[in-house]
Amino acid sequence: MSSTVATGFARRIPEGEDRERLVCNDCGFIAYENPKIVVGSVVGVDGQVLLCRRAIAPRRGFWTIPAGYMEMGETVEEGARREAREEACADLALDGVLAVYSIARLGQVQVLFRASLASPGFAAGAESLEVRLFAWEDIPWDDLAFPSVHWVLHAWREAGAGPLGAPRGNPAEDARGTRPLEGA
Amino acid sequence: MSSTVATGFARRIPEGEDRERLVCNDCGFIAYENPKIVVGSVVGVDGQVLLCRRAIAPRRGFWTIPAGYMEMGETVEEGARREAREEACADLALDGVLAVYSIARLGQVQVLFRASLASPGFAAGAESLEVRLFAWEDIPWDDLAFPSVHWVLHAWREAGAGPLGAPRGNPAEDARGTRPLEGA
Repeated sequence: MSSTVATGFARRIPEGEDRERLVCNDCGFIAYENPKIVVGSVVGVDGQVLLCRRAIAPRRGFWTIPAGYMEMGETVEEGARREAREEACADLALDGVLAVYSIARLGQVQVLFRASLASPGFAAGAESLEVRLFAWEDIPWDDLAFPSVHWVLHAWREAGAGPLGAPRGNPAEDARGTRPLEGA
Repeated sequence: MSSTVATGFARRIPEGEDRERLVCNDCGFIAYENPKIVVGSVVGVDGQVLLCRRAIAPRRGFWTIPAGYMEMGETVEEGARREAREEACADLALDGVLAVYSIARLGQVQVLFRASLASPGFAAGAESLEVRLFAWEDIPWDDLAFPSVHWVLHAWREAGAGPLGAPRGNPAEDARGTRPLEGA
């Protein structure tokens, strides 16, 4: 972090607004802080699910679905397919939004797809230690990286192979995504 | 905009990354640019739909659904209900995600709900000139503010009153949200 950048800003309520913003003391420039979008996919292959073991912080060594921050200039679908290429060297076919989760604690919205492999093959990308298929009963539940990985795997299981209903929201017991990691 | 803030930054590819970022020339601080999330609702009342005539730019005087930028610390559902309170003085009950649209041109993702009034009554908020219910055949199609308002009204009509299927994505003819406003 940069003191060069940060010292010029203070939190105050700009004229005509109703909440605190980061405002430059010199010029009044407002640095809006916005929630960030994570895009990702539950990839099913013959009833098994593809998981990546994280090579990077946070939660290095733990298992997750291929997912990451959406970039400017792409769609949610393009972002989800890019993340699978980067993390699992996998070429996905998406068949719909499986879940939209809010992690209010982190200022994060997750748009997660149901997907299959568009062409065979996968491998660990630079951000993964390992990429594997797991049968449902072999999923390493105690070694999943994030609560939302639990949530979306169960949503995937419940959806079966049929048409997707409305995407799941957060589970009732963590409706605002405010629980810490241990609350998975 | 602030020259104080902006002159210190240049676009370059930071070490370990694969694309250009805004990087501070002094300290290397990376100012990530992320897509922004718009949350909103199609509000049905006895088969009619609630629309707001915009009091602010862009597209002042044109009609839209209650929607706006999601704030930090809220869920998508809370954001959609807040926007309806602010723009239409309406208290909503949400019953699911109707559509997830990407407007790649703007770096924007829209998460749009199907909703009804949780308690009766609505009125123009500070950002609206007027709030009205329209029967389907009376919707001012030529005076809608944005292409995605067209898209989501048709998604709402097609969904009827039944359970929501998977949320609609962009229409095929504008799959990446790259068309200008006139392409509505």
